[in-house]
Amino acid sequence: MPNIKLIIEYEGTEYGGWQSQINAPTVQDALLEAIRKVTGGPVKLYGSGRTDSGVHALGQVANFQTEAAIPAERYACALNTMLPPDIRVRSSYPVPDRFHAQFSAVGKHYRYTIYNDRHGTALYRRVSWHVGWKLDRQAMIEAAACFLGTHDFSAFQSTGGVERETVKTVNRSEITCDGPFLYYDVAADGFLYNMVRIMTGTLAKVGQGKLKPEDIPAILESQDRDRAGYTAPAHGLCLMEVYYSCD
Amino acid sequence: MPNIKLIIEYEGTEYGGWQSQINAPTVQDALLEAIRKVTGGPVKLYGSGRTDSGVHALGQVANFQTEAAIPAERYACALNTMLPPDIRVRSSYPVPDRFHAQFSAVGKHYRYTIYNDRHGTALYRRVSWHVGWKLDRQAMIEAAACFLGTHDFSAFQSTGGVERETVKTVNRSEITCDGPFLYYDVAADGFLYNMVRIMTGTLAKVGQGKLKPEDIPAILESQDRDRAGYTAPAHGLCLMEVYYSCD
Repeated sequence: MPNIKLIIEYEGTEYGGWQSQINAPTVQDALLEAIRKVTGGPVKLYGSGRTDSGVHALGQVANFQTEAAIPAERYACALNTMLPPDIRVRSSYPVPDRFHAQFSAVGKHYRYTIYNDRHGTALYRRVSWHVGWKLDRQAMIEAAACFLGTHDFSAFQSTGGVERETVKTVNRSEITCDGPFLYYDVAADGFLYNMVRIMTGTLAKVGQGKLKPEDIPAILESQDRDRAGYTAPAHGLCLMEVYYSCD
Repeated sequence: MPNIKLIIEYEGTEYGGWQSQINAPTVQDALLEAIRKVTGGPVKLYGSGRTDSGVHALGQVANFQTEAAIPAERYACALNTMLPPDIRVRSSYPVPDRFHAQFSAVGKHYRYTIYNDRHGTALYRRVSWHVGWKLDRQAMIEAAACFLGTHDFSAFQSTGGVERETVKTVNRSEITCDGPFLYYDVAADGFLYNMVRIMTGTLAKVGQGKLKPEDIPAILESQDRDRAGYTAPAHGLCLMEVYYSCD
């Protein structure tokens, strides 16, 4: 049975996250409904992982198997005609049977966007966290680099996570600035529950002067959530890309 | 009586444009209401010019006079607490009595954003025009340069405009690309009704190969609206800055 891989962009504002649930519309449900209309039958849709309510994606990945005789590349166009405008399938293509969007993933790249000025932004308010206090950007850049490498990230995990392996390898952890925008780009072989949002909140605390860059290694070592910073709000977070060793 | 200048950012999606009207909420009305609450009295608010329904701004300018004893710089914060999140006052400061946001303006800078790929964008759909056909970017860059200088822009004006002087001087007319995004930045000493949107629609027609860059001078000379291209949709347009010779 053909196995189809989808690259998906969405604005999470109106959704209760990626994963199907009873209490709120979800991105997965919207996609399932569109796939059902296009293929004429129910399918199982596997996402690379959950995103929380309000989190966005430019490169979420999902796959499904179907017996429908539709060329894999056509799904992007076909699904987009059925989907609401805040969800777009950017591309679709065939992958081997063994490909599974979650279990085949070897890493992810997230971007967290901070809008740092006194008054906030009207145009980008849905996709950025407004931080009104003055941030020491140089200190944040130095602190971000302290996350690079292999560490136990227990201190950067909210309760409720299901991931048992708390040791992760971060191979990108970088802050760049463009006017009032601060972008925190972080890539790793895996992420714990709320890990990027807590890392960002901790960097913001460094930016406020309440923590120093050199505190980061000690916080990691402590494995103590209370020593890290806030959980930055969901709407600044975007899943940029999911990495696979092969399709 | 103190004269206060405001720099205003807004997402135009939910508004019937800048100017007060009976049929729809407007940015001007929202600001007037906030100013009334802050100053305790009614004021007259002068904008640099109208923006159409759905058009955005990062740098709209307005001014008002008030007898309220509030330092001019405080208005930005005070008004933002009263305004909806899709309108932000970016700064406020005192200007001489003679300053008038419309009549003192000597030029404006608009940016039109095109999102050019097959499937469109979920995250930036409110602030960009999705063009699904392949665009010849190099031809568009060349065509944009043809607008530079002093020309009669009658061919790039929708009916219904109130501006009598159709000769305008364009001192910036430039297309830049960033992945699927095409930005058309245009600055001039004044703009006719829908001028930027028609210029953009004409550039898109060049991008499609239906017009050539060398057709632009003839279209300008013809003063014939029918020879120019489409009126690009409002939601791709953003008023970036209004220029004044002095405050």
